[in-house]
Amino acid sequence: MSSALQSWNDTPARQAIVEFVERATREGDPCYVPPPERIAVFDNDGTLWCEKPMPIELGFILHRLAEMCETDPSLRDRQPWKAAYERDYGWLGDTITKHYHGDENDVKVLMGGILRAFAGMTVDAYAAAADAFLHGQHPTIGRSFRDCGYLAMIELLRYLEANGFATFIASGGDRDFMRPVTEEIYGIPTERVIGSSNALSYQEDERGGNLVYLAQPDVFDDGPTKPVRIWSRIGRRPVVAGGNSNGDIPMLHYAGTPTRQGLRLLLLHDDPEREFDYTAGAEKSLERAASDGWTVISIKNDWATVFANGG
Amino acid sequence: MSSALQSWNDTPARQAIVEFVERATREGDPCYVPPPERIAVFDNDGTLWCEKPMPIELGFILHRLAEMCETDPSLRDRQPWKAAYERDYGWLGDTITKHYHGDENDVKVLMGGILRAFAGMTVDAYAAAADAFLHGQHPTIGRSFRDCGYLAMIELLRYLEANGFATFIASGGDRDFMRPVTEEIYGIPTERVIGSSNALSYQEDERGGNLVYLAQPDVFDDGPTKPVRIWSRIGRRPVVAGGNSNGDIPMLHYAGTPTRQGLRLLLLHDDPEREFDYTAGAEKSLERAASDGWTVISIKNDWATVFANGG
Repeated sequence: MSSALQSWNDTPARQAIVEFVERATREGDPCYVPPPERIAVFDNDGTLWCEKPMPIELGFILHRLAEMCETDPSLRDRQPWKAAYERDYGWLGDTITKHYHGDENDVKVLMGGILRAFAGMTVDAYAAAADAFLHGQHPTIGRSFRDCGYLAMIELLRYLEANGFATFIASGGDRDFMRPVTEEIYGIPTERVIGSSNALSYQEDERGGNLVYLAQPDVFDDGPTKPVRIWSRIGRRPVVAGGNSNGDIPMLHYAGTPTRQGLRLLLLHDDPEREFDYTAGAEKSLERAASDGWTVISIKNDWATVFANGG
Repeated sequence: MSSALQSWNDTPARQAIVEFVERATREGDPCYVPPPERIAVFDNDGTLWCEKPMPIELGFILHRLAEMCETDPSLRDRQPWKAAYERDYGWLGDTITKHYHGDENDVKVLMGGILRAFAGMTVDAYAAAADAFLHGQHPTIGRSFRDCGYLAMIELLRYLEANGFATFIASGGDRDFMRPVTEEIYGIPTERVIGSSNALSYQEDERGGNLVYLAQPDVFDDGPTKPVRIWSRIGRRPVVAGGNSNGDIPMLHYAGTPTRQGLRLLLLHDDPEREFDYTAGAEKSLERAASDGWTVISIKNDWATVFANGG
């Protein structure tokens, strides 16, 4: 066994990864991939770090919404401020589950609050607030948010890079929320972070100008938008893609080329002891994995260690 | 004199560049820039390659529009197809000049034609068509489009990279038009090319899906949109920026930090012998350069050689 991927058990998932990389880097092999085409993209929430009991970014948003209720009490009776102020995580969890099932009504209410929460903030102030929040503790798994990255996936990023792959994050989460920590957690610099974003406005001043968020969305990077954003940002079709939910299906399918099968990785959350056990929002992607031969990674069976720094 | 920047004369412009880079890389200097913050962005048309008698991309578009007139003769009486079919470069040149002066009427007509010209095309087919066109000859300066890059600017890119800067193209031109040749001409990979773009749609099929251009614009990357796109793509404020026109003013002003002056470079086209001599569309940027202390690069005085491969 290679010294890379040490947190992986020697299972078919690990073998599929190693075989793909060995063939992709072996000149003359029918599956050889020239170095400039070695592009790997990974979803973030639920793929590179944990997303339960709620996505980490949602905690950040709730923190901000509750903060707004302190200065404007009239917000306390309106969603999504009400849920944030009362710490009613049920409403929020349901919102996400409904979104996975195609019901976007509560998501729109939530999005309206999010847009208002950050409108007028500069990108620098937002980054500082996100960075400060991400120094905090995860609510249930007894570790800091910065230690919520999956060690096995971080090893996979390094293994791919050691074999000439350029690695990118292609997340449905907010691009600028992740950026302050992606280098530290995953070794992925800001320029390689693709995600959702609010619209920005350039505001001239005497000292270089500022970029300020507007109260309107720009990109919601999920589903069929993921391949569009991947192309827009990278200018190449990936050959490796990793995800964990229905929203990752187009990105996973897009990996590879018309003449060459890519490596499609789907993370299955099946370990209630060490992480979480759920398939809500991933049902269709699991079906596609079965029908299309994607590689399913079982946290329970395929990983000897789950989290970095003692997981 | 350093062995880098060999095509530059030893003038104040060159000295300003070298002094900036030496201070930015000298630890302890008040102008020291930590390596992750060494970001340099450059406009393309008129900054890295020549844009006269018309932008190179416009030639590509005209080629495509004329091609459409062959199969659909009814287009021959409508702008912009009429100008393309009759090779009426006057109408097109006026359109660009009007745009620089803030009159967008003809630009809208042109944009309508452009959107229709490429709607329904896959990104791969478009890239192949752009690449083939860029193997052709420039209409007036006796060299291939691939040799229209300015040698002095290419040396500057290498000099910056040798000093730890990450270099990006931030152009008003179409992102996907430039991408097939940016690595070859400038050594800048596709993921570091920022530019305008048409909207894309992901279309599922059985072999990985395709990305297809829609008949609608996505981003017009000029003026105040340039800082927005630079942040969106890179996630950092640049400390070096190079441009040549009014549309580059916000990008140039944005370079640096609130506490640290950046290196702002404005290319002046003043060499009718070896390149072109014009300031149309650059008037305001030249005023800003004078008032804000930006470094103006005179092609005539500052460059010993203009083009790569015998310029």
